[in-house]
Parts: sequence; C-alpha cells; structure tokens
Amino acid sequence: MSGIPGYDFGDESVPDAPISMAEFERLKDTVMWSDEDDEYLRMAGETLEPQVDDMLDRWLGFLSTFEFMNDYRRDVDTGELIEEYGDRSRPRYGQWIRDTCDTPYDEDWLDYQFEIGRRHHRTKKNETDDVNAAPHINLRHITPLIYLHTATVREFLQNGDHTEEEIDKMYQAWFKSVVLQVTLWSYPYTKEGDW
Amino acid sequence: MSGIPGYDFGDESVPDAPISMAEFERLKDTVMWSDEDDEYLRMAGETLEPQVDDMLDRWLGFLSTFEFMNDYRRDVDTGELIEEYGDRSRPRYGQWIRDTCDTPYDEDWLDYQFEIGRRHHRTKKNETDDVNAAPHINLRHITPLIYLHTATVREFLQNGDHTEEEIDKMYQAWFKSVVLQVTLWSYPYTKEGDW
Ligand code: HEM
Ligand code: HEM
Repeated sequence: MSGIPGYDFGDESVPDAPISMAEFERLKDTVMWSDEDDEYLRMAGETLEPQVDDMLDRWLGFLSTFEFMNDYRRDVDTGELIEEYGDRSRPRYGQWIRDTCDTPYDEDWLDYQFEIGRRHHRTKKNETDDVNAAPHINLRHITPLIYLHTATVREFLQNGDHTEEEIDKMYQAWFKSVVLQVTLWSYPYTKEGDW
Repeated sequence: MSGIPGYDFGDESVPDAPISMAEFERLKDTVMWSDEDDEYLRMAGETLEPQVDDMLDRWLGFLSTFEFMNDYRRDVDTGELIEEYGDRSRPRYGQWIRDTCDTPYDEDWLDYQFEIGRRHHRTKKNETDDVNAAPHINLRHITPLIYLHTATVREFLQNGDHTEEEIDKMYQAWFKSVVLQVTLWSYPYTKEGDW
C-alpha cells in the first residue's frame, strides 16, 4: 500500500459512509460538478505533485501562527507540541492533496471523508497516532479554513505550464471539492437528523 | 426600519451570539481578514446594489432546479410550493447581500448570523413567516452552496467600473465572508461542545 502510517484509505476497517453514492452525487450537483471538474482535478494533480511539501509548509505555517490552533496538537498533560503527532499526520495531509485530485471519487473515497471527519472530531481524534492531545477540534475552527485551502492553491496552480483558462478551471474544481469535503467532515459534529 | 417583513437585524428580540466579538475576531483571522476586506466589501456593495434582484434570480433559479430543494419550501400537507413563503423571505435574502457588504461587522451583525442559522434549522424554520413547510434544512445541503454564493458573485462584480485587481479583492473579501457566515450558521446543528 502507500506505506503512510495511519493512512487507511480503501481499508476494510473504514466504516461505510452514512450516505449513498446517489446522495453524494446530489451534493456534487449542488456545487455544479461536471465531468470537466474530474478532468481538471487530474490536471491539477500533476501540477501540484512536485509542490506538495511547499503547500503543507504554507498551510501548517499559517496554522502555527495561532496559539489556539497549536493547542490542538499539544500534549494535554505537559503542554508540549507533540512532534511525533505532526510527523505522522503530515504525510496523510499531503496524501489528501493527491486524493483530492484523484478523480472520479468512488465509494472508498467517500467512506474515507467520513473517517477524516471522525479524526478531527472527538470520536477518533488522537487514536490513529496514539497521542495525548486535545480530544477534539471545534467545527468553527475548521470550516473557515476552506478559504486557506482554496485561495492559496491558485498560486500553486500557477506554477505549471497552463493557460489562465486552465488554471481557472483547476481552481474552480478544487474549490468545489474542498467545499464538498468539509461538508462531509461535519457529519460527526451534528445532532442526530440535523446533518 | 427597513420595512422588510420578518427582518429582525438589530432588534432586541434577537438573542445574543454564543461567542464573544473576540472569538469572532479570531475566526476572522483564520480567513486572513484585514481592514482591506472591510473596504473592498463596501466597494462590492455599490457594485452589487443595482444587481440584487438579478443575483436572487440566479441563486433561486439554480436552487429550484432541485426537487429536494423545493421540498424545503412546500406545504407539508398539500405538497404545494408556498408562494407567500418565497415572497416574504426573498427580500430578506436580498438584504443579506447588503448586510454582507456593510462592513465592519458589529455585534448586531454577529447576533443576526446565529438567527439566520436558527431560521434554517429546526429551532426556528417556518416561524418567521408562519408557514407549514418542512421543519428543517439539512446542513449538508447548505454548506456546499458556499460555492454558488461565491463563484457566481465574481460575474456580478465584473459588471461595474472596476479594475481586475479591484474585482479580485472584492471577490476574495466576499468569499471570506460567506465562509465565515456559513460557519456561524452551523451552530444550532452541532452537538453540545462540538462547535
Ligand atoms: C479545511 C480545513 C482542514 C483540512 C483540509 C485538514 C486536512 C487534514 C487531513 C487530510 C488530515 C489527515 C487525515 C488522515 O488521517 O488521513 C488531517 C488530520 C489532522 N488535522 Fe486537519 N484539516 C483541516 C482543519 C484542521 C484544523 C483547524 C486543525 C487544528 C489545528 C487540524 C489539525 C489536524 C490534526 C491534529 C490532525 C490529526 C488528527 C488525528 O488523527 O488525530 N486540522 N487534517
Ligand atoms: C450558503 C447557502 C445559503 C444562503 C447564503 C442562504 C441565505 C438565506 C438568507 C439570507 C435567508 C433570510 C434570513 C432572514 O430571515 O433574514 C434565508 C432564509 C431561507 N433560506 Fe436560505 N440560504 C442558504 C441555504 C439554503 C438552502 C440549502 C435552502 C433550501 C432550499 C434555503 C432555504 C431557505 C428558506 C426556506 C428560508 C426561510 C427560512 C425561514 O425563516 O423559515 N436556504 N436564506
């Protein structure tokens, strides 16, 4: 497999998504998803692949300017940043860029989105890396990051050999995908029947 | 006041926000908000004002292509679209465009965001217009619409007398605001302590 610690995409240990592919297709329709988006995300994947590390540096660098964001990665007893936690989760974060570009999305992809949600939520945070950090990341600190994870990508998409029109189409497809994913991740946070 | 039925912005009947202005400022920081965004949203307001009706037509037109979206506005007994519901809520939707551009955001604005959340959620849907429609709009049908409410705005921002750079800055500020607002609206949907 990928050899990334704790990366369980496609593994049978990952529970089935609570929605059908048909409902997921409906959600895709609400972001005006088309086959062209699948295509442009694959194009984006080629442009972003050599920049994955730079993207993670940019995003993690931004997050680390906030003490309350760092608190989510500290040992709750000692107050120290858990280095091992960062080292282990970073490659999964990088793999997420690839998975976001690896379209079309199938059932394994859909199932894994809910797993990513659980890993930010108290259901399963810390478990994968067996750490003693804060038990939960608040939803209100996740959703606004749609902006960071979309706006900055445009700059990285520009570092390729593409026309302005192609760059814009890759950006739009990426934007749609991030919005969809954060929607799926909010599932464990919501009250029964509200999601 | 504004004379818009059911529009209670600034009214003392609107409950206080469950977060402080300081926490709201923190959320603004996570979308990289700056004074420039306040400024460019005011500029956007001037460009969008004469286009409010066109924007609503565009958005409501898109939503009405989905039967499951229309279901949220039907009488649950008769199955008919409730015309009065649409007629009464539409001006509030238009006012939202103005309020989004009326920066900087103050406590009344913050309080009203949570009211908008409640009006989509089972806490308070239907109450303002005293209708017998579906009692609740699912969160997973709201969050993806960040895309619609952002991407289409770029086109409307282009119909003014602004440079490409100004258009882009207005668009970025609008994008940040929509992401923040949908974050705030998710509050009543989440489990105690999870938001
Ligand atoms: C849109 C916003 C976000 C994106 C795109 C994102 C992305 C990811 C991804 C892809 C993973 C790896 C999932 C896996 O195990 O395969 C992850 C894990 C993690 N993220 Fe995020 N994240 C977001 C918000 C946040 C926030 C606000 C924090 C707070 C500092 C955060 C902290 C973490 C931590 C601590 C983990 C490891 C979780 C665990 O398994 O214990 N993330 N994130
Ligand atoms: C990002 C997405 C959305 C935005 C920006 C938005 C915007 C608004 C605004 C500004 C209002 C008026 C609030 C007030 O009373 O002052 C409103 C009310 C309403 N919206 Fe949305 N909305 C969104 C998603 C949805 C969805 C998915 C539906 C489903 C069809 C929907 C249906 C309604 C209904 C039925 C009302 C009246 C609610 C009531 O008071 O009973 N909205 N919306």
